[in-house]
Amino acid sequence: MPFYDLIKNILIGKPLPSRLAESEKLGITLGLAVFAVDALSSTAYATDEIFIALSGGTYATYTGLLSFPIAIAIAVLIAIVVISYMQIIKVHQDEGGAYIVAKENLGLSMSLVAGAALLIDYLLTVVVSVSAGVAALTSTGLINHKYTVPFCIIFIIIITLVNLRGLRESGTVFAFPAYLFIGSMFLLFACGFGEFISTACINDLISAKNKAFFTNPEFSFANLGFIAIMLKAFAHGCAGLTGIEAVANGVNAFKEPASKRAMTVMMIMGVLLAIIFLGITMLASIYDLKPIAHETIMSQLASTVFGEGTGLYYLIQLVTMVLLVLAANTAFAGFPRMANLLANDGFLPRQLMNIGDRLVFNNGIIFLGILSILLTWLYKGNTHLLIPLYAVGVFICFSIAQFGMVVHHVKSKSKTAVRDIIINGAGGLTTTLVTLIIAIQKFTEGAWIVLFLIPALVFIFLKVNEHYKSIAKQLRLTDDFHVTIPTKHKVLVLVSSLGKGTLSALAYAKTMSGDVEAIHVELKPEATERLRQNWDKYEDKIPLKVLPSPYRSITSPILKYIDELNAISEPHWITVVVPEFVTKKLWHNFLHNQTAILLKALLRFRKNTIVSTCRFHLED
Amino acid sequence: MPFYDLIKNILIGKPLPSRLAESEKLGITLGLAVFAVDALSSTAYATDEIFIALSGGTYATYTGLLSFPIAIAIAVLIAIVVISYMQIIKVHQDEGGAYIVAKENLGLSMSLVAGAALLIDYLLTVVVSVSAGVAALTSTGLINHKYTVPFCIIFIIIITLVNLRGLRESGTVFAFPAYLFIGSMFLLFACGFGEFISTACINDLISAKNKAFFTNPEFSFANLGFIAIMLKAFAHGCAGLTGIEAVANGVNAFKEPASKRAMTVMMIMGVLLAIIFLGITMLASIYDLKPIAHETIMSQLASTVFGEGTGLYYLIQLVTMVLLVLAANTAFAGFPRMANLLANDGFLPRQLMNIGDRLVFNNGIIFLGILSILLTWLYKGNTHLLIPLYAVGVFICFSIAQFGMVVHHVKSKSKTAVRDIIINGAGGLTTTLVTLIIAIQKFTEGAWIVLFLIPALVFIFLKVNEHYKSIAKQLRLTDDFHVTIPTKHKVLVLVSSLGKGTLSALAYAKTMSGDVEAIHVELKPEATERLRQNWDKYEDKIPLKVLPSPYRSITSPILKYIDELNAISEPHWITVVVPEFVTKKLWHNFLHNQTAILLKALLRFRKNTIVSTCRFHLED
Repeated sequence: MPFYDLIKNILIGKPLPSRLAESEKLGITLGLAVFAVDALSSTAYATDEIFIALSGGTYATYTGLLSFPIAIAIAVLIAIVVISYMQIIKVHQDEGGAYIVAKENLGLSMSLVAGAALLIDYLLTVVVSVSAGVAALTSTGLINHKYTVPFCIIFIIIITLVNLRGLRESGTVFAFPAYLFIGSMFLLFACGFGEFISTACINDLISAKNKAFFTNPEFSFANLGFIAIMLKAFAHGCAGLTGIEAVANGVNAFKEPASKRAMTVMMIMGVLLAIIFLGITMLASIYDLKPIAHETIMSQLASTVFGEGTGLYYLIQLVTMVLLVLAANTAFAGFPRMANLLANDGFLPRQLMNIGDRLVFNNGIIFLGILSILLTWLYKGNTHLLIPLYAVGVFICFSIAQFGMVVHHVKSKSKTAVRDIIINGAGGLTTTLVTLIIAIQKFTEGAWIVLFLIPALVFIFLKVNEHYKSIAKQLRLTDDFHVTIPTKHKVLVLVSSLGKGTLSALAYAKTMSGDVEAIHVELKPEATERLRQNWDKYEDKIPLKVLPSPYRSITSPILKYIDELNAISEPHWITVVVPEFVTKKLWHNFLHNQTAILLKALLRFRKNTIVSTCRFHLED
Repeated sequence: MPFYDLIKNILIGKPLPSRLAESEKLGITLGLAVFAVDALSSTAYATDEIFIALSGGTYATYTGLLSFPIAIAIAVLIAIVVISYMQIIKVHQDEGGAYIVAKENLGLSMSLVAGAALLIDYLLTVVVSVSAGVAALTSTGLINHKYTVPFCIIFIIIITLVNLRGLRESGTVFAFPAYLFIGSMFLLFACGFGEFISTACINDLISAKNKAFFTNPEFSFANLGFIAIMLKAFAHGCAGLTGIEAVANGVNAFKEPASKRAMTVMMIMGVLLAIIFLGITMLASIYDLKPIAHETIMSQLASTVFGEGTGLYYLIQLVTMVLLVLAANTAFAGFPRMANLLANDGFLPRQLMNIGDRLVFNNGIIFLGILSILLTWLYKGNTHLLIPLYAVGVFICFSIAQFGMVVHHVKSKSKTAVRDIIINGAGGLTTTLVTLIIAIQKFTEGAWIVLFLIPALVFIFLKVNEHYKSIAKQLRLTDDFHVTIPTKHKVLVLVSSLGKGTLSALAYAKTMSGDVEAIHVELKPEATERLRQNWDKYEDKIPLKVLPSPYRSITSPILKYIDELNAISEPHWITVVVPEFVTKKLWHNFLHNQTAILLKALLRFRKNTIVSTCRFHLED
């Protein structure tokens, strides 16, 4: 099929042989681009989340001020998680992250929980990132926000196609925007803080309004309402940590020494993430920005610092959008790998295990693309509504991974065991605490969906596994098995009229068995009569059996006849040969009855009955 | 497949044997219900069309007055067309109407034009009737007009399912609403005219306003603007004639004597149509109604006569809606018959020729259902926008049929030939004139689409016919044909591992040929090694061929191997046997690789190569 090949080559590139696998892998520069975009791009919406949470309550006036300590708490959390994950990468040099760590150290159930959480997170990464990317675009006002959903879907389709072309090319495509984003963020900070310092004295940092906060005699830090608001804002801000684990889940996408390269990328990424997140939140606080509908904090910030409608403003928005849309790429690298691991262990359908022609996991990519489009459409591309679902799964994975590492260190009894246990133990306790905060604070906002989906997925994993085990058992060879297989073979050839196609099918049938019969379903008596006359002239060996069809159906008389044959004789194979002709032009096939398809569907559940289509190829 | 049968039985009923065909046919009472609803229901929108046309121009004030002569002209046109069609029914006792008449008397091209026009008309009947039916519903205000499209689609789906159950049942279902509509129209007229006569003296008929029209010294009947407006209103009002031909197109749906019964139905229908159409238009004129958005003239009339919100008002709206929605049924009886005629003559795909299990033409019905939904969605269920497309095709058919009859009478040389020629000749000239008026007046409003579609369809008919002729020629047996058919047969069995399914497929292959080879595509060397070890233990006759797969593809090594086989030996059949297992639960099949499907698609275009799926049935 040259046409099929052509389309496939255009869309997903030529196939690569297995031995190229190593050169498909990533160095530090490209690895940072592929795996850090997800984490870095979180900074485009994390600050918005904190500001939305703070501006919703009693302390709305102090949003800017209160965002400071929260941003710092989150930066500390980033440091803890990054250090803990570097430990994981050091020990687990292959892919899989939390899933593999849990499988080796915490047992089956925990590993499946981690696997389920990771799959959900990859999906949400795509949807949240693409939605936030389109929000960056609509914030400019160049595109009306009512086109959010169609734009999201177009971006998802483009990313899916890019990923079907293979991972290395993804890295190349995404390196430029990733580094441009980092550069433009530093430019924003330089100008933003520079502007502030040159025009205002340091005293302005504590404005009259903010001073009022501290001098209010009624206020106490132990105030329960205040703590609730701060916890909520913190839980929302944790969206900034999403994507941080991507490196650990894809260590074997790196060139050797893979774990060393991955650790370096993890560290650089952690530092960049903390700086950019702190920078954006502090600038937004200094310029006293408020969350407004249909414009992101990032857009407000860029237009405040660079001026509305300036080239630099549009550059920031564009690069943020590109980065966010490409962040979804991390998930497109990670989801199929995770699915492949689960499929290899027999917890997901075997189709997700295929490596395909381009060393990427095509089925997983296509599956992820379709799910993302559905979810985007369901949530109308609203980032803020999706984030409660997002963060809870991420932190469940963090916690499982850290505690898995604690068990590993206990078992390993290495020299650094105590230090390592402290690092991962502290990390695990912190992330568990954060998981609880997020789950409670965001439960009604959507976190419950994920808390329901994870056990549901684990249940599916176990069911799939049970099925594969049952199949393997049923297919296992037994000594008496050969006795049950029939050795006789009857061939039925379906005949409507006598032409080259039919004669060819009869000849094929004759090579298969000595017991061949031609079957004609009588729909019009004149046609049957014509066939009988021709039959004696052209075919002398094979008997012609005419089946009446009172209901004018083609298939039911055949099914009935097969039943009769099975009833009167010992077990035997029955092959029904259906002659068809293949036309040169594809659309011409629509002009012919597709009896074989129907017959195959109807005979699918009969034992030892096979439908074969014998094709005659037409010249025109 | 009991589940498939169950669904089919619920949705389209049990199959009926052919010999019931006669009792499926219709008498006069049911025949009128089935074939007259289309014509009668036109009265629900024809008056609106006249009023819209008149109220759009200079003479808007005189809409009521001017609608009088137009209504009378259309009533005369109805009489002419009905009488002409009764002639057709007398001569052509089988189905097909304009198509058959043209085929027998005017030659191929004219018959195809008629066939195309008829198919388009049936489609538009469905869409216009359903849209107008929903308009009757939304006119009551009980349902907001913004739900027009979903309601239309639901009605179309229901009608499609009802028709898949068979024609006779359709008649039964539709008789009650048809007769209720006729009855309620007469009640409306009785009350409407009665009310008018009892409360007003005859002089009121010519109101002061209308008198001004006649006494205006500037006005002349020869005024070009006046003529244009009147022609336009007439052209629009011709929508009232749509559906009148349905009886002639379905004569053989009647019990014997079919043509006599059909003529009676035609006559009764013509009288009813003229009365109801004139009644509605005259009442609307007397009560000085105006076309308004989102309420039909019928709804205004019923609420004026019976009072707004009364039970009788809702009855009229309901029965009009039901009748209109069911009018689409005429098309569902006619479209598949027309498609069947064209398919029988080799101008449409053979699939449309199938009679199916319930003596109706299922493929045509399903096809019509889908097209109707698309068109409804495209035109947002707006009756007024659809009508320009509708009427032009109808009148083209009328004209072709009449002139065909003229030719028939000329050839027949019967005693009544002269009289018949005059009847059909006058009819033909009238309808041709009307066709021209409609085509010109409504060209830019949408008639151009149909004037483009008819030749496009004719072109498709000719292309399809050409294809079937070419196929028949290519399949025709020649004396030297048997020489080209291979007599040798090589069987390849695809093997991934050795289990019951594989062993069963090997046994099947052995019954087919002495030349069997097992093929294993190497994806994981460990799996290949395991297979080799088992092979020597369980299978001694069939050699195992291992194919390397550098690109980790399952299909390409097999295709390459087949190419090699074909290159080295004389022409032979190759059967590729793919072992599969069938699981008890349908969803379990998604858990297994569907290699056979892919392989079949890829081998489809190779000569003498057959892919057979040998299924092993699992117990669990």
